[in-house]
This record gives sequence, structure tokens and C-alpha cells, in this order.
Amino acid sequence: MNMLDLIIKKKNGIALSKEEIGYMIQDYTAGKIPDYQMSAMLMAVCFSGMDDEETAALTEAMTDSGDRLDLSRIQGIKVDKHSTGGVGDKVTLIAAPIVAGLGIPVAKMSGRGLGFTGGTIDKLESIPGFRTDISEDEFIRFVNNDGISIMSQTAELAPADRLLYALRDVTGTVDSIPLIASSIMSKKIASGSDAIVLDVTVGSGAFMKTEKEAKELASCMVRIGKKAGLNTRALITGMDEPLGSYIGNSLEVIEAIEVLKGNGPEDTKEVSFEIASQMLIAGKKAANREEALNMIQCSIADGRALEALRKLIRNQGGDAKVTEDASLFKKARIEKALVAENDGYVNEIRCDMAGNCVKLLGGGRQIKGEDIDPSVGLKLLKKKGDPVHQGEELAFIYANDEEKLKEAEKLLKGAYVIGREKPAKEDLILGIIS
Amino acid sequence: MNMLDLIIKKKNGIALSKEEIGYMIQDYTAGKIPDYQMSAMLMAVCFSGMDDEETAALTEAMTDSGDRLDLSRIQGIKVDKHSTGGVGDKVTLIAAPIVAGLGIPVAKMSGRGLGFTGGTIDKLESIPGFRTDISEDEFIRFVNNDGISIMSQTAELAPADRLLYALRDVTGTVDSIPLIASSIMSKKIASGSDAIVLDVTVGSGAFMKTEKEAKELASCMVRIGKKAGLNTRALITGMDEPLGSYIGNSLEVIEAIEVLKGNGPEDTKEVSFEIASQMLIAGKKAANREEALNMIQCSIADGRALEALRKLIRNQGGDAKVTEDASLFKKARIEKALVAENDGYVNEIRCDMAGNCVKLLGGGRQIKGEDIDPSVGLKLLKKKGDPVHQGEELAFIYANDEEKLKEAEKLLKGAYVIGREKPAKEDLILGIIS
Repeated sequence: MNMLDLIIKKKNGIALSKEEIGYMIQDYTAGKIPDYQMSAMLMAVCFSGMDDEETAALTEAMTDSGDRLDLSRIQGIKVDKHSTGGVGDKVTLIAAPIVAGLGIPVAKMSGRGLGFTGGTIDKLESIPGFRTDISEDEFIRFVNNDGISIMSQTAELAPADRLLYALRDVTGTVDSIPLIASSIMSKKIASGSDAIVLDVTVGSGAFMKTEKEAKELASCMVRIGKKAGLNTRALITGMDEPLGSYIGNSLEVIEAIEVLKGNGPEDTKEVSFEIASQMLIAGKKAANREEALNMIQCSIADGRALEALRKLIRNQGGDAKVTEDASLFKKARIEKALVAENDGYVNEIRCDMAGNCVKLLGGGRQIKGEDIDPSVGLKLLKKKGDPVHQGEELAFIYANDEEKLKEAEKLLKGAYVIGREKPAKEDLILGIIS
Repeated sequence: MNMLDLIIKKKNGIALSKEEIGYMIQDYTAGKIPDYQMSAMLMAVCFSGMDDEETAALTEAMTDSGDRLDLSRIQGIKVDKHSTGGVGDKVTLIAAPIVAGLGIPVAKMSGRGLGFTGGTIDKLESIPGFRTDISEDEFIRFVNNDGISIMSQTAELAPADRLLYALRDVTGTVDSIPLIASSIMSKKIASGSDAIVLDVTVGSGAFMKTEKEAKELASCMVRIGKKAGLNTRALITGMDEPLGSYIGNSLEVIEAIEVLKGNGPEDTKEVSFEIASQMLIAGKKAANREEALNMIQCSIADGRALEALRKLIRNQGGDAKVTEDASLFKKARIEKALVAENDGYVNEIRCDMAGNCVKLLGGGRQIKGEDIDPSVGLKLLKKKGDPVHQGEELAFIYANDEEKLKEAEKLLKGAYVIGREKPAKEDLILGIIS
């Protein structure tokens, strides 16, 4: 077998066999296939696509390129959750404690943020003392004792995906459904859960720009998951404006705590509860959506959900008092309001610009490995469809640097599109694929 | 400007600007753009294509990546000739002396053979003493004195093309019309001629497998040449079986000499005379094809064509007596006949197999830089359409090694397809584009 033949085959639109894909991933990971051949292959895949068999084989080969997390020591149906990313997306911080409180073991690996989207690990680390670099033994012990643990992804999980993603990133080959689907699913399968609920976001702030693409990606991932023996379900959720009121690491944790107390913005609640309900169905704790949503309401009302978050924080060295006193989070030095220049309605809050605004303030990364400032971010007082009057406050910016604040203000101003007409309300939940 | 943006642009089917293409070629040649980005770009070009403006810009950027040969010291319209490659293709060895004998200065750079196609430089070097690594000064002096010189291509001519071709070769991105056309034309333009006649071969033994592709490539090259201010014409010629009787380095020189004496096989004569006639028209020595063909007949009849070859050989250190005595060429030790196993007609002589047969005997290269044996090769006694009887000789194999001979016999047997029906005669000249 040789890589040149495989490139030409894929270029000519012929499907690669499982053996061919296995050889390609193994030899690439071993450094035997040069980057310049792999990047030509990736571009050929962008144009020629991959069928279900190929995508499943690619996922399996990448999963097998490293360790698989063994969660067999944990009783019950382990349900994982993954989002393709959004701005203000604190759904994991809400759904995980909810389902843990309702008896589903949550043994979750998460990642850090990059670009204008945040990562659950960064958000959790904004809680004073919280450690995400726990050992696998601690991880399993916490889940067995208290039903929940979230640790940062180790490099050993699907190393082929890490190498391929880095190459895709610099060769314009990121936006291919089979490549995205296999990248996500290889890590998820290697994470060892029995079931997975995917949140595929769509809109200006998401990777998928159209509902059609999002549904295609969701279906592809559900098929891969099922082929691998995982109960897999996907929600398509709108990400045309940031989710909820807060964007920024500690600020999103604060909003998540509010939701677990029964408060918080409606949109954050809607998406989080829908995801949690699918996790409950996948974990066989609820027979249907209605039953699941009722259970969720109860677990919030009786404090089980918030208690699960407290246990998570305590076990991993964090100060659980943050759930009662938000002032324990590191606070930004400067709070600056953005005010409306005209009367009208919020027609749009451009997600990418809002996300980049937080990144610019120091709350996100341009490149991997950079430090972030957990305290900075935004509070959106007005959301899409809200009426605004000239001089009224649209949002607050939390910053630690005057220069960065100035740039962030400009960016946020651009993100808010105010128009004369009230825009139509759009659905947040666009579909469920299972 | 950055390469990632350009890759994504081309992937999305958007044309690159002249500046963008210039930047890309310059920085790639300087080693500032990594191979893995360039190979992704090349694959994107294979799928998205390039329009005329882009292809011309790519050609110009590659031409400008190195030296341009300055032929201004040579009087008259310099006419170059290029073939996209074939098996048994000794057209340059015939057409160049013919037009030189008729007053067109031939200052020609040629290449060596690779794979199953031969190169003019290797063929000329089979003449005892012949030097192709002459200096530029000698080259120009020979043309000014005697109207003809052929030297081997220097590395300084379009170095970007050399780098890009090496990358295309290992990334499955060879067969793209704009990439092929710009590769050929960048070297031809850098070679400094005023006019160029292209021989675009089509068929089993050629790079272009269909007439449609060949015409597309020919048109593309003619447009590039004209944009660069060169009088450019292209012939589409059939290469469904090897050209002429002989394949192999010295053997092809022997056939060329025969043609220049008025003998030789009809197909070799037809293609060579058509190419020469287009060169005469491009060089303004003939007004039309009929006039040109008449001039060619005269130059052969009165010995001017053969005399031009003799001058070429003498100037470059070769023994011109080979034109009178073929035994002065190095001779292969073994001559073995291949005989027909059945009665019938030759339906096909597979070009690639016949070419590979010569390569296997030592007459061609698998990789660049390999030595070749000038004496080995084939003489095809029967060509497509000829009737054959069981036991009758089809061809002779000339070899220097018993083992290689055995393998070559097997291969040649496979190349000859004998059928019951006489195949239809196909045209050799399929079109002229100017």
C-alpha cells in the first residue's frame, strides 16, 4: 500500500477501504507519511467526500491511534455530552450536574477554548482552587462516590486526531463534514462513555453556518456513534446570538450556578434542559422528553442539581462557597457600559464579534497554550428582539486593561445591530437526530 | 498576504489574483511556504481549476523564478518545439535539422527521459562523442554559424517548476490542465524562442488519454504562449501505438537519419513533417502547410536536412560518420525475435508496455539521474493493422542482459494485442490549434 495511490484514488472519487484508511492513519501518526501527502489527501477529501463506511473507518483508526479510557470500573450507563462550540455556551456546566444529580454517572473529559469559543476546562478553572489535571484514578473515584467528575483531555486520547487537526488548521481543510465528524467522534469514543448527546450549533457564532450543514454533520456523527456501539443523539441548536447573558470564563460559571438555582436567562435554560433531557433518555433514566424535563425541574427545585456541582467543585479542590457567593470569583477591575446610540430593536448580536471581544479582553486564546484571564467578559443586558432607547445600556464590559477595553468597546458596538423593525423570533432547538 | 487564505480562496472556487500567484510562487521557491500548504493548494487547483488569467500569471511567476535564456544575439525568428511525450517519439531529431536546413535558427533546450518516455538529450548522447552539456556561448555560436544547436536544460530555467513538479509527482496532483500547461510553458518561455510548436500527444502512450483533454491542454498552452508574446501553435497527434519502428536511444537516432535520407516508416515521417511544416509557418519561411511540405521534401531530396544534422553532431563533438554507417553506434549484444502465436491482425501495441519494456532493458529511467544503456530497445516489424501469421516475427528485442531480456519478452508479448478483425485505421494528426 502506498499513500500516493490512495491520494489519487480519493481524488478520483473512489472510496478507500478500511485497511487503506487504517494504514494511512497509522503511518501518518508514526511519522512515515509526510505532511505534504496528508494535506493533499485532506484536500481531496474536502472535494470528494467520504461515505459512511470510510468515515467510520477513519474514526476507528484515529480512536485506535492512542489509549481508550476504561470506564468499566464505573457502574451504570455513562453519558457524555459534546458541543461543536458557541459563544456563551455554558451548557455543560448546567446539564452535567443536573443529570449527575438524577443518577447518571458523568465521567467527562473536556477541552480548552481556542479562538472565539470558550472551553469547559477554562471555565471550571476560574473557580478558585479547581483542578482539572486530576489522575484517572481520582477521576473514577469521584464518579463512583459522587456521580460526577470533569477532567482535561489528555494528549494520549486519539493522538492521530491532534496531528491531523493541526495540519487541517494550516491547510484550509477544516470544513469537511467527514473530517469534522471523525475528529469529534474519535475523541468521544476514546473517552469511554456508553452514550453521547451532541449539541450541534448553527448560526453566525457556530462552525456550521446553515441548518442543512448542521443536520448533515449531526446525522454523520450519530451514524458513526451507532456503528461504534454508542447510543448517540444530537440536538441542532441555534447560535445566531450568544447564549445567555454572560460571556467569559468565571461569568459563565456564575450564570450556570444561577440556572441551577432556578434563575438565569431563558435561552440558556432552554438549551441546557433539552440537552440534559436527551442525556436522561440516553441514560435510560427517563422514557421521554416530557418526563425528563419534569425530572430536571424537580432536581433544580430540590437542590440536587446544585449539590452535584458543589460535589464536583469540592472533590477537585475548588471552593464550593462560590455557589453561594459570586464575589469569591476573581473580579475584573473595570466595568464599562455600552449604550445604544439610537432607538430601535436589537436585530442581531454577532456571535463571532462578541466572542472575539472577550478573547481580546484576555478571556480567550489566539494560539494554544496561552494563559487566559478568567475574570474578563461581557454581560449582555439586551438580546435579539429587545427594544432599546437611545442612551440605554446594552451591555457591560468587564476588563482589566484600558487599552484592551477601548478596542473591545469598538468590537462590541459592531456586534450589536440595532434596527427599526423588531426581528422575528427564531427557534433555539432546530431538530433532534437520534 | 498569507498562504492559508489563498488555499481557502482557491478551494472555494475563487480566482487568485496575479499578485497572489506571484507571492505564492516566490515564497514557495524561497522555502518560506511549506510543502504541506503548497500540496493542499495544488490539490485545490486540481478540483477548482484555474482560469486563463490565473494560468498565465502562474506561468509568468514560474518563468521569472529563474534565468531567461537571452537569444537576442541570434538573428531571425527562433522556433522551439515541444512534445508532451510519447514512445518512439524521435520527431525533434527529424524536424529540427529539417527546419535548420531551411533557414530557421534552432536554439533548443531539451530534457532527459523519465519513466516510459525517452528524452532527446539521451538520444543525442547515444551518438559517440556527442556533448549536450555545452556552454551558453558555444550554443549561441553554433546556432549563428550553422543554424542549429541542442543543449540539455539547465537547472536555472524555471526552478519553481522543478520544485513544484517534484511535489506534484508525490501528491497525486500531476493531471491538472493549468498545472501541466504552466509547467511546460514556463520552461519554454524561459528558453527564449520567438515561436513555439507544441506536439500534444493523445492515447494509451501519452499523458492525455482523450482527444478532448489533449485539445484542452493544447488550447490552454497556445493561449499562454500568445499572452507571453510568442507565436504559438499546437498539433494534436495520436499516440495509440509507438511512433515508427524503433524504440530505444541509438535506435531512434538511426530511424531519424533514415527519414532525413528519404526513407523510414510512414507514421514517423507524417508526424515529423507536420511538426516541421508548422515550425516553418511559425518562422515565416512558408506561407502555408502545402508550401512547407514541399520545402521539406526538397530539403530531404537535396541533402540539406541531413547536412544540418551532421553539423549539429560535429559541432557538439560527435562522430558525424554515424549518418553514413549505423554500425558506429554501440550495439546490443543480443537480438531476439518475438513471434506471433496466432494468425490475425495487430489490433493494438500498448505504448506504455512497449515503453516500459525498453526502460526495463536499461534504455530508460525509473528515477532521475540513473544511467541508461543507449544500445538496447525494440524494432517493431508489425504495426497496428498489419496481418500476422502464427510463427511470424512481430518485433526484435535488443538487449545486453539475459534476465532482463526474459522479462522484456513477457512485457512485449503483452503489449501486442492480436485479434481476428482488422482494426480501423486511425488518423495520426487529430488537429491543429493556432
